[in-house]
Amino acid sequence: MSIRIGIMGYGNLGRGIECAVKQNADMELAAVFTRRPPKTVSVLTEGVSVYHVDDVLSHKDEIDVLILCGGSATDLPRQTPAYARHFHVVDSFDTHARIPEHFAAVNAAATDSGHVALISCGWDPGMFSLNRLYAGAILPDGKDYTFWGKGVSQGHSDAIRRIDGVLDAKQYTIPREEALAAVRGGENPDLTTRQKHLRECFVVAAEDADTAKIEQEIKTMPNYFADYDTVVHFITMEELKRDHSGIPHGGFVIRSGKTGWNGEHTHLIEYSLKLDSNPEFTSSVLVAYARAVYRLGQEGAAGCKTVFDIAPAYLSPLSGDELRAHLL
Amino acid sequence: MSIRIGIMGYGNLGRGIECAVKQNADMELAAVFTRRPPKTVSVLTEGVSVYHVDDVLSHKDEIDVLILCGGSATDLPRQTPAYARHFHVVDSFDTHARIPEHFAAVNAAATDSGHVALISCGWDPGMFSLNRLYAGAILPDGKDYTFWGKGVSQGHSDAIRRIDGVLDAKQYTIPREEALAAVRGGENPDLTTRQKHLRECFVVAAEDADTAKIEQEIKTMPNYFADYDTVVHFITMEELKRDHSGIPHGGFVIRSGKTGWNGEHTHLIEYSLKLDSNPEFTSSVLVAYARAVYRLGQEGAAGCKTVFDIAPAYLSPLSGDELRAHLL
Repeated sequence: MSIRIGIMGYGNLGRGIECAVKQNADMELAAVFTRRPPKTVSVLTEGVSVYHVDDVLSHKDEIDVLILCGGSATDLPRQTPAYARHFHVVDSFDTHARIPEHFAAVNAAATDSGHVALISCGWDPGMFSLNRLYAGAILPDGKDYTFWGKGVSQGHSDAIRRIDGVLDAKQYTIPREEALAAVRGGENPDLTTRQKHLRECFVVAAEDADTAKIEQEIKTMPNYFADYDTVVHFITMEELKRDHSGIPHGGFVIRSGKTGWNGEHTHLIEYSLKLDSNPEFTSSVLVAYARAVYRLGQEGAAGCKTVFDIAPAYLSPLSGDELRAHLL
Repeated sequence: MSIRIGIMGYGNLGRGIECAVKQNADMELAAVFTRRPPKTVSVLTEGVSVYHVDDVLSHKDEIDVLILCGGSATDLPRQTPAYARHFHVVDSFDTHARIPEHFAAVNAAATDSGHVALISCGWDPGMFSLNRLYAGAILPDGKDYTFWGKGVSQGHSDAIRRIDGVLDAKQYTIPREEALAAVRGGENPDLTTRQKHLRECFVVAAEDADTAKIEQEIKTMPNYFADYDTVVHFITMEELKRDHSGIPHGGFVIRSGKTGWNGEHTHLIEYSLKLDSNPEFTSSVLVAYARAVYRLGQEGAAGCKTVFDIAPAYLSPLSGDELRAHLL
C-alpha cells in the first residue's frame, strides 16, 4: 500500500512535492488543497482532485501525511499546530530564530492528538542543520561555517522590487571564494558578514527612473544590503526573463577541527549543495521525511520532531537488510 | 556523571579514542585493555590503568561503553559478538561485503544479553554510508559516486612491502580530478576503476634490488594495482620517514540527481572529508556514537545497530532545546 500524501498549498513548493511524489514508487498523491477557487487550479498528476482548504478535514481518511507548503511568516505558525491536531504533518518552517516557539506550539498539538509533526525540514533548516550537528559531535574542538549560494534570495529580490522606480529584480547571494579558501585551508578565520558573502542584483528600472539613486538605495538598505559588498546591474525586462528566471541555490556547511593529544591534526568536513531548483530540492527533502513521519506514525509515535530526532533509516524505501548490504 | 569509556586494543585507533575522549567533557576514560603484557603499555591519560584483555569481565561495572579497536579481518568477527554479551559496544568493522553476517552474529548476542552494539562505525562505513543514504532518499532519480583519498591505504602499502627487495613503502590512493569534474558537472558518467582513482607508491628498495622488476611487480599485482594507473617512486628510507610518516585520508560522496515533472532540474549533493589522521578521525566518530550507544542503553534499547538506526540528536552533548535553538 502506498503512502498517501496530501499537499496544502500549491505554489512552487507544492508543485515540487507533486513532482517528488511521482519519483517515489511507495507514494501517491491523494489530494491538493488550495485557498484559491479549486476550479482555477490544475495539477499535473492525472486523477488527483483539488479541494478548498476549508474542506481538508472531510478528506482526513484519504491522507497519511499532509505536507504544509505555506510560508513561514504567517501561514505555518498558524497552520502547523492546527493541522497537527488531525494529520501527521511535515512543514518547512525556516525562521531560525522562532523555531523554539513553533516547536512548542506544534508539540502541544501533536502530542495531544497523537500525531507526528516534523517541522523545519528542507535544506537549511534541514540537511545543513544535520551536517552542523554531525560535524560538531565528531569534532568538538572546531568551528562551523555556513555559506549560502550561489543562489536566488527571494526576500532580497522582493526588497529591491519595493524601491521606487524598480519594475522587477533578482538578487543572488554569492559566497566569497577567498573566505571559502581560508576555511578550507583550516585557518579557522573569524569572518565578518561582508567577508563571507557578496550580493549581486539584476534590476529592471522604469524608463524614467534615476538608476544612480536606485543603486544607492539598494546598497545602503539596512539588514538586507548595508553590511555586504553589493553589485548592481541594470538590465532589460527581456534579459531578466531570459537569463534570470530560474531559482537556483545551494551552499556549504564546513567544519574544521582538531584532534590528537595536543590538537596536532586538522580535519575538514564539508557538505555542499548545488541546486538547479531550490523549491524542488526542498520538496524532495520534505517527501523523504514524509516517509519517515508515516513510519513513525505507524509505530505509534507522537509529538513534534525535527530532522535531529529521526534515524536516517526511516527516510529510505529500502529495508534494514538492504541498507546494510548495499549502502553501509 | 561522565560516560565511562573502555578501550579494547591500544594501537592507532585505541590511542585516537583516548585523545577523543579527552575532548568530550561528558566522558572519561575508564580503562584500557591489551593483549600485550599490561606493564609494557603506557597510556597518555593520567590515572588510567591498563589491563590484560583476559581480565575485561572483572571490570564490567566500571565501563559504560567498550570501544573495540581491533581489526576487521580476525579480531572483530570474534570480539564484537563476544563482548556484546557483557557490554554496550562500538566497533569499526569495515569489511563491507561481510557486514550482513557480522550484523547477524552481533545482533543475536546483543539482543540476548540486553546490550546495544553499534557496528561498522567510522567514516566509510559510517559517515560516507549516512551520506549515501540521505542523498539517495532525497534524490531517488540519481546516481552515487564514492571517491577515496588522497590518502594512505594500509592494505596496499602492506602489499608492496611483501615484494622481494622492498624495505618499506607507502601507497596513496588519489581520486582523479577529471572524474570528479565529470561527476560534479552532472554528467552522471559511468566510470571504470581506472578512471576513478590513481595509485601513487613511494618505495624504499634494498641497495641491490632490481627496481625495474619491483615496479613491474607492483603495477601488475592483481586486485591491488592491475586495474589502476599506478605511479611508482623509489626514495630513500630517510625521505620516506621525513615526507610520508602521516596517515592522511579522506574522500568524497557525491550524488547527482534530477527533479521536476520531466527531470528538468539537476542537483548535486557532495560530502567530503580531508583528514590529517585517518585513525584519529575514525576514533572521533566512534566516540560520538559511543555517546549515542550509552543513551540508547539507558533507555533500555538492545540489539545490533548501525549509523542508519541512530537519530542524530543522540550523538550530541547538547539537549534537544539547545540543538533546536542553535543548530537547526
